[in-house]
Amino acid sequence: MTTTPSVPPPSEAPFSARDLSDAWPALDAAERAEGFKLLSHTDAERFFHDLTTSDQSELLCALPADDRRIWMRVLPPDDAADLIQCAPPGHRTAFLHALDEPTRQEVNVLLAYAEDAAGGLMNPRFARVRPEMTVDEAISYVRKQTRERTVTIYSVYVLDQEQHLLGAVSLRELFEAAPDKTVREVMKTDIVRVDEHTDQEEVSKLFARHHLLAVPVVDREQHVIGIITIDDAAHVAEEEATEDIQKLGGTEVLGAPYMKIAFLGMVKKRAGWLSALFLGEMLTATAMGYFENEIAKAVVLALFVPLIISSGGNSGSQATTLVIRAMALGEVRLRDWWRVAHREVMAGVVLGLTLGTIGILRILTWQALFHTYGAHAVVIALTVGVSLVGVVTFGTLAGSMLPFILRRLGFDPASASAPFVATLVDVTGLIIYFSVASVILGGSLL
Amino acid sequence: MTTTPSVPPPSEAPFSARDLSDAWPALDAAERAEGFKLLSHTDAERFFHDLTTSDQSELLCALPADDRRIWMRVLPPDDAADLIQCAPPGHRTAFLHALDEPTRQEVNVLLAYAEDAAGGLMNPRFARVRPEMTVDEAISYVRKQTRERTVTIYSVYVLDQEQHLLGAVSLRELFEAAPDKTVREVMKTDIVRVDEHTDQEEVSKLFARHHLLAVPVVDREQHVIGIITIDDAAHVAEEEATEDIQKLGGTEVLGAPYMKIAFLGMVKKRAGWLSALFLGEMLTATAMGYFENEIAKAVVLALFVPLIISSGGNSGSQATTLVIRAMALGEVRLRDWWRVAHREVMAGVVLGLTLGTIGILRILTWQALFHTYGAHAVVIALTVGVSLVGVVTFGTLAGSMLPFILRRLGFDPASASAPFVATLVDVTGLIIYFSVASVILGGSLL
Repeated sequence: MTTTPSVPPPSEAPFSARDLSDAWPALDAAERAEGFKLLSHTDAERFFHDLTTSDQSELLCALPADDRRIWMRVLPPDDAADLIQCAPPGHRTAFLHALDEPTRQEVNVLLAYAEDAAGGLMNPRFARVRPEMTVDEAISYVRKQTRERTVTIYSVYVLDQEQHLLGAVSLRELFEAAPDKTVREVMKTDIVRVDEHTDQEEVSKLFARHHLLAVPVVDREQHVIGIITIDDAAHVAEEEATEDIQKLGGTEVLGAPYMKIAFLGMVKKRAGWLSALFLGEMLTATAMGYFENEIAKAVVLALFVPLIISSGGNSGSQATTLVIRAMALGEVRLRDWWRVAHREVMAGVVLGLTLGTIGILRILTWQALFHTYGAHAVVIALTVGVSLVGVVTFGTLAGSMLPFILRRLGFDPASASAPFVATLVDVTGLIIYFSVASVILGGSLL
Repeated sequence: MTTTPSVPPPSEAPFSARDLSDAWPALDAAERAEGFKLLSHTDAERFFHDLTTSDQSELLCALPADDRRIWMRVLPPDDAADLIQCAPPGHRTAFLHALDEPTRQEVNVLLAYAEDAAGGLMNPRFARVRPEMTVDEAISYVRKQTRERTVTIYSVYVLDQEQHLLGAVSLRELFEAAPDKTVREVMKTDIVRVDEHTDQEEVSKLFARHHLLAVPVVDREQHVIGIITIDDAAHVAEEEATEDIQKLGGTEVLGAPYMKIAFLGMVKKRAGWLSALFLGEMLTATAMGYFENEIAKAVVLALFVPLIISSGGNSGSQATTLVIRAMALGEVRLRDWWRVAHREVMAGVVLGLTLGTIGILRILTWQALFHTYGAHAVVIALTVGVSLVGVVTFGTLAGSMLPFILRRLGFDPASASAPFVATLVDVTGLIIYFSVASVILGGSLL
């Protein structure tokens, strides 16, 4: 094996975007910039657009100022704003100054919004027409606007003199309509719109609910100030799903791709929740302490502790996951809690009976085959079976209700992670198990 | 309180789409159809488009045949095909026959594809132009196509006589270009395309990776046969995230909204995994059985069993969740397993040391305050601390590697649910704990 340079020198066979893509993860910033400069302009443009925002920002940091100016200027204002937000603080001013003056102003407006507000997501360049134009005039006018500066033409907005929203018409509808009709005659007036300060998660739900391709952003006086398109909404939905999944897994949201986040940062985000769960789980040691005498008298009871508590945890994890996702998709609302509780108690009893039956069969079979559990096998089997019904029912109910409680208190329901529910259920599971044991085994083993 | 009919009679104040939306969840199929018939045509059209496919199908089942024909015909072929797939088997032929003849043929072609193939997702009506047309001619020709039948105009495809894909140009690019240039001069030729049988999950990843708005679907001979648009891709991405979240929660994919799925169907989907996990978890009883003598000699050991195994489960759940999501987003690939393993072992040791330290402090504090653990408190604390380092490191490593192993074997990595990992780690955790105990407590307690 010989060592070869990871980026071939310019004299070799044409170096393609695909070569650079393949090598990308293994290259450092300087090598990436070097490879990027080897691409043809068309290849480079597509390659640049395909990069994630954080990769774009890293690349621009490593490029000379002249190149940086070229590449900052191919971005629409909303993407330029994202890139600047992603850049290391020391580079932000330089990035901003690489833009032309009108775009810089637009970007500055976007940067003033909270990171997850509709205003920060929007593109301020959209196609606009007047209601009194004919369809033919409107098409020509939109065409003129695209030539003057890059505008988004998913949907064309009909505005009055003061930029108030009167209606909207898609380019397809303009194409379909009779050329001499007026815009007022063909536009839709009942337009879904969002306020500039709406949370981005709400915006993304709106796209899903109304099957939108674009939505206008308005300020307090109903002036249209920008447009959010479905590609941005899809990106937000993906981000939100990632955050929910990470929270469900019992970790803080990483906020960066797994392979990119710094090791210590990642460990810190995991250690916080893990330690909190550990402190909660310590209550199991306390609970077990109360039953130390029972365990000493009947060590066989201890054997089933992991089985019992994990069954509660697993059933709770199922319930909490289903409810959290249904909430995120808007299928379940806060006021549905009673219907969900009713459903989950029934589900819990059925699931508990299933596991209880399997548990009893297992103990009796082992007893018949190996005589594992001594003279009291039948009552032990009964104790385990009855406990499972109680623990699984409780786990299911607790897992399904926790997201409602968190949301009601103003927290994110997805914080009701599977590990969080399991920890909650463990202590209760132990108490249920040992209580059932002391009732059933009262006269015999205990 | 008086009982009022849930749908007001037509003589009352205008009944709006919003009224129907609000009442919708509480209405049965006949009431929904009745309410729907009260809407103005414009309201009804928007209301119908905003419904989920399954609600559309239920509504059409409850409407008379004439109305059904009207509403089936407002749908583009891909949405009509989805609706028919969603309808009860007995109604499918009637729905198909409500379409006009050319659309019925298009829908039949779509229905022949596997449910999750690109072919089933595409709209066969897209805008097409010839390379030798001028920009002005191309725009007029696209406009003519939208008037003849509803076509998707996100992207205009340039085809030769045999419908082979030569290139693509967006309507915005046509608008921006000089009117007398030819399409060949302004089109892009390096087009991302998908085969008709590509899995929909791949298609949705492609949209995210290349920031696409639309992608052409081609058959084996590279004929363009349809177009998939970003709204379909976003819908697929949402569905896939839901499936991953449900699997992570340790349940089979529900495949229907939580509030709609039949109770028994839901319980069955949960009972399967729960029983499988329970059977696996029974190994903990077997493992504990091996250490019955140790527990009898030192009951205090049993007190920490839930704490130890749940810490392993929680750390495993974190690792598996992070890796599965990173895989789903394409951030981590199969060949990255070694880098991930390396990272996770280090993370596991740090997290284990953190929890171990907390555990030791807790035991020594309780000992100082309440003298809870008798004469051997220090060695017990040491046993718990050392075990935690081992169990958490093992849990983290196992949780992070399981998705790789499952994918390598051809299974879905998301099956490595948090409960699955916890169950795997529990048995190992017990063995680690009791082994550490027998080494440390060998001379004293055991």
